Amino acid sequence: MPRIIVDVMPKPEILDPQGKAITGVLEKLGHTGLSVRQGKRFEIEVDQITDARLDEVRKAASEVLANEVIENFTVRVEEAQ
Amino acid sequence: MPRIIVDVMPKPEILDPQGKAITGVLEKLGHTGLSVRQGKRFEIEVDQITDARLDEVRKAASEVLANEVIENFTVRVEEAQ
Repeated sequence: MPRIIVDVMPKPEILDPQGKAITGVLEKLGHTGLSVRQGKRFEIEVDQITDARLDEVRKAASEVLANEVIENFTVRVEEAQ
Repeated sequence: MPRIIVDVMPKPEILDPQGKAITGVLEKLGHTGLSVRQGKRFEIEVDQITDARLDEVRKAASEVLANEVIENFTVRVEEAQ
């Protein structure tokens, strides 16, 4: 069943302490040259994927899933693996 | 610059209280019929995307980014938007 994916990432200009911490840990483990940023991924199962549902998910993302002051989000459809 | 994306999600059989809580909030806001699961998204910038780098990111993902007892992860290349 296809599902709707909402990816939420910190805005580029916003400090990402979690990403920085992970980058540091990876370096200590010998994985150098990997610059990491961390965000959230939401998988949303719906009965049917229609334009109206996608608009509703966009609305739900901006109301609940992302804090648009500091985060950007994208909405897309993904075939279930 | 292309980047490597690591998506980490709770295994299907694992309870996802965060996802359930969000589903409930969305229902209260009138967004019914949206079943939400929450995971993590990592964007990794590297100097060059090679098979060796992808293998390294897979290793880093299983060591640090995902807890493979309760989570699954996928690694893919994404063109920067």
